[in-house]
Amino acid sequence: MTKKIYVFDSTLRDGAQAEGISFSVKDKIKIVKALDQLGVDYIEAGNPGSNPKDLEFFEKIKDTSLQNSKLIAFGSTRRRDISVEEDKNIQSLLQAGTSAVAIFGKSWDFHVTNIINTTLKENLNMIRDTVAFFKNQGKEVIFDAEHFFDGYKANSAYALKALQAAVDGGADCLVLCETNGGMFPQEVYDITQKVVESFSVPIGIHTHNDGGMAVANSIMAIEAGAVHVQGTYIGFGERSGNANLSTIIANLQLKKRYSCILEEQMVNLTPTARYIAEVANINLDDKEPYVGRSAFAHKAGMHIDGVNKASHSFEHVHPSSVGNERRLLMSEVAGRSTILSKIQSISPNITKEDPVVQKIMDRVKELEHRGYQFEGAESTFELIVRKQLGKYKPFFEIEYFKTIGEHPAKNSEFGSSAMIKISVDGKEEISAAEGDGPVNALDKALRRALEVFYPELKEVYLTDYKVRVLDTKGATAAKVRVLIESTDGQDIWTTVGVSADIIEASLIALVDSIEYKLLKNIEKKIQDYL
Amino acid sequence: MTKKIYVFDSTLRDGAQAEGISFSVKDKIKIVKALDQLGVDYIEAGNPGSNPKDLEFFEKIKDTSLQNSKLIAFGSTRRRDISVEEDKNIQSLLQAGTSAVAIFGKSWDFHVTNIINTTLKENLNMIRDTVAFFKNQGKEVIFDAEHFFDGYKANSAYALKALQAAVDGGADCLVLCETNGGMFPQEVYDITQKVVESFSVPIGIHTHNDGGMAVANSIMAIEAGAVHVQGTYIGFGERSGNANLSTIIANLQLKKRYSCILEEQMVNLTPTARYIAEVANINLDDKEPYVGRSAFAHKAGMHIDGVNKASHSFEHVHPSSVGNERRLLMSEVAGRSTILSKIQSISPNITKEDPVVQKIMDRVKELEHRGYQFEGAESTFELIVRKQLGKYKPFFEIEYFKTIGEHPAKNSEFGSSAMIKISVDGKEEISAAEGDGPVNALDKALRRALEVFYPELKEVYLTDYKVRVLDTKGATAAKVRVLIESTDGQDIWTTVGVSADIIEASLIALVDSIEYKLLKNIEKKIQDYL
Repeated sequence: MTKKIYVFDSTLRDGAQAEGISFSVKDKIKIVKALDQLGVDYIEAGNPGSNPKDLEFFEKIKDTSLQNSKLIAFGSTRRRDISVEEDKNIQSLLQAGTSAVAIFGKSWDFHVTNIINTTLKENLNMIRDTVAFFKNQGKEVIFDAEHFFDGYKANSAYALKALQAAVDGGADCLVLCETNGGMFPQEVYDITQKVVESFSVPIGIHTHNDGGMAVANSIMAIEAGAVHVQGTYIGFGERSGNANLSTIIANLQLKKRYSCILEEQMVNLTPTARYIAEVANINLDDKEPYVGRSAFAHKAGMHIDGVNKASHSFEHVHPSSVGNERRLLMSEVAGRSTILSKIQSISPNITKEDPVVQKIMDRVKELEHRGYQFEGAESTFELIVRKQLGKYKPFFEIEYFKTIGEHPAKNSEFGSSAMIKISVDGKEEISAAEGDGPVNALDKALRRALEVFYPELKEVYLTDYKVRVLDTKGATAAKVRVLIESTDGQDIWTTVGVSADIIEASLIALVDSIEYKLLKNIEKKIQDYL
Repeated sequence: MTKKIYVFDSTLRDGAQAEGISFSVKDKIKIVKALDQLGVDYIEAGNPGSNPKDLEFFEKIKDTSLQNSKLIAFGSTRRRDISVEEDKNIQSLLQAGTSAVAIFGKSWDFHVTNIINTTLKENLNMIRDTVAFFKNQGKEVIFDAEHFFDGYKANSAYALKALQAAVDGGADCLVLCETNGGMFPQEVYDITQKVVESFSVPIGIHTHNDGGMAVANSIMAIEAGAVHVQGTYIGFGERSGNANLSTIIANLQLKKRYSCILEEQMVNLTPTARYIAEVANINLDDKEPYVGRSAFAHKAGMHIDGVNKASHSFEHVHPSSVGNERRLLMSEVAGRSTILSKIQSISPNITKEDPVVQKIMDRVKELEHRGYQFEGAESTFELIVRKQLGKYKPFFEIEYFKTIGEHPAKNSEFGSSAMIKISVDGKEEISAAEGDGPVNALDKALRRALEVFYPELKEVYLTDYKVRVLDTKGATAAKVRVLIESTDGQDIWTTVGVSADIIEASLIALVDSIEYKLLKNIEKKIQDYL
């Protein structure tokens, strides 16, 4: 028997408190739709009292019907010494028109007397009145007890009274908030357990990551009896962020007898994480548990050997269970088995005794010695293998090129331009371009020339460009390694180039990227033909 | 009474398994020095058996005497069915010449029979023989029981036998490794507690972050009696990374009765994290607990109001306790105190009310908005302050320059050259140079021209050159930040430049570096004269 845990996502409210995050109304609607599809139970989407723009969002979202999730508007208890009806924030919250609201109130005595400057008694009235007001309006009311754990440690009797005031008002769920994010797992467990024993209303948990333990603290609270978990889908939030819901859902649903979202949606955990990162315009941390690009990336030769023999030897879950994938990284510590499995993906009949395996290994070692690194540059690696196997033809030759950087330039302080001459099957083409720096200018000129012969390159563009200076002692004469990530809208591939000259290193990676695309296209055509 | 916890850092060994991480010997030596200064107990710096480059490192590091830390070389137990003496990896490990070694062995029966394909009995012999061999060589031996928790859950009797074999060999510490990273805090606690009760040898913990709970799992093990904790300083490692030691140290030392590093080094937690990220050439996650740039950043108005009234209202610890700082994102007062102290170091009489303070803050904010970052580029920052204070004169003007990159070149595939015209007090000088890439050519040409006027520049050379691509989505047109470290043999200084054009960004940093040197020389002359 599995036990249902209610998932409450606050990416659009608490997540919006993160440094560097700013959602437009359109962004918010996109994220609401993605979370609804995934099937979280509650989507907290704004604080209409403190942020007037949020009212516009709640107005617009009324046209969208959600399949799985309830929308939540968030707000404070009424201010001290006025009635609920007189409080403008409360009226904004009502105006949002959601069927459920989250109301936060103080449960730490110090905050009541020293931060909002009222009496302990009035704070309890504020909680009870506000919850009761929204219950009378027919809403589902979730009560967030701010700083509950700090409050409980300082004055447990008062913290429990704050919860009781919410119960007296009719609250449907009591959420224990670990607002400052510094608690330890065992104390979260012990305190949650006591609350669960004291109240018959469902208990929720809301944690922050200031001690790096938000996920663990949430899980300890659930093990202690909480049935509702709050967080942000990929963990961003004020300071060190909120509890990461994608990690919590995977931990609970794949490894414990809990049900968080529909089973068939588990494979959407990773795509949803990447989509939300994209909409929020942040880089999803590669090492994000379960959903990060490196979450199932193996580099040590022994580990690669292990996962090839049995995936659970070095993977806690199968990557496909969360819609992610395994990646075997190429590196100086990677052994023969990595290289062999790569070769076999191109030529399945080659065995490890075949002399070409040694030849490819020697070539890889030589390039690594010169500063190449093939992890995250699988496409350059594939081209090397193909060249050694004879499964490769050059698509073009670069006859010559020239780049010019100058200061002052015509319309700006600095200017860059490039010219290039290429040939394809004996036919020549020359072109030129200006750009932001010599690399960008050369990139543009090369594409312009090649598109004459290969119009399909028009759909290719670069999505990432990284420069790593190797052995920095060489200063401006040091070798650089350039990584280029490209896409044609369907696939993504990465290539690498190394040189003391950044233009040369970039060009090597660029040429590999283009050849890889052209090679894939030919293979697709052959496959379609067969 | 505080209890000592031994901190074992594996940034240079397990951390080097992370995607995108590749350390040069020089990088490794830098990180060893930083960790030694911080005072971690053990620094695991390489695996000489699987990586021959690591032997070069252990050879070179012998010249460096460490104040607080012991160096560790890491390796496997002997291979099956051969003697320790016949095993080349064991001999490489011995050759590293460290006084302490970490030996890992299998403790999960499935791994013994299905991955390394030997008998359960032979595996125990491999552990005992290998530990005993190094003990006989007079080494301190730390035994890492790989996959201990998975092993214990599958076959607890065998997992304990593996530990016993290490004890029989004379191991000084038994480390329980949560290799696959998927355990839950409570099970880590329970299993560790049982081991602690069963052995009189000190117990250690080594966790991975695949379930997002590495920090919590480490702490639960310590609460259960472990006295040695392994991790990587800022958490990078294979897949989702290792336990983050900077978080663990702060959690244990600031909040529990444990001592990890010297109390006076606690304020170096943040600078050390940033330094290691810089050397590893990665972006330290802004929301990293304790040490991240956003770890004490407040955005919500209510939170800002709260921390202004009492810092502990929304901060779990005081930012200065870990050498970090509070940042109020919506407020004008952010960073003012840092900037003020910098201004006063140049002009002691300026007070915080002086309008120049606001002027400098506006300028700094504008530059930060454009991608500048002054951490680790204090010399550029000082020049900005001086320019606003009027305590600056330009030493030269760049009239124009041109860089050319071409392929094919005369004696090589690619060639780069630059010409530049500068003026000093109305006198002009033009020069040209060839180089490895356009930046290097321009660097040489500029120096050649300037040395005519300022022969003291002959003693200046660059010791470091770093390129970071900002907003990688712009691909080859993305902005880059260039950091240049220079020395004249006595002082070291760092400058920064940002532009979409790498030549421009480099030149900005280069010009600042040269101006800084000339400014220092003049001030020294004035001081000598007075």
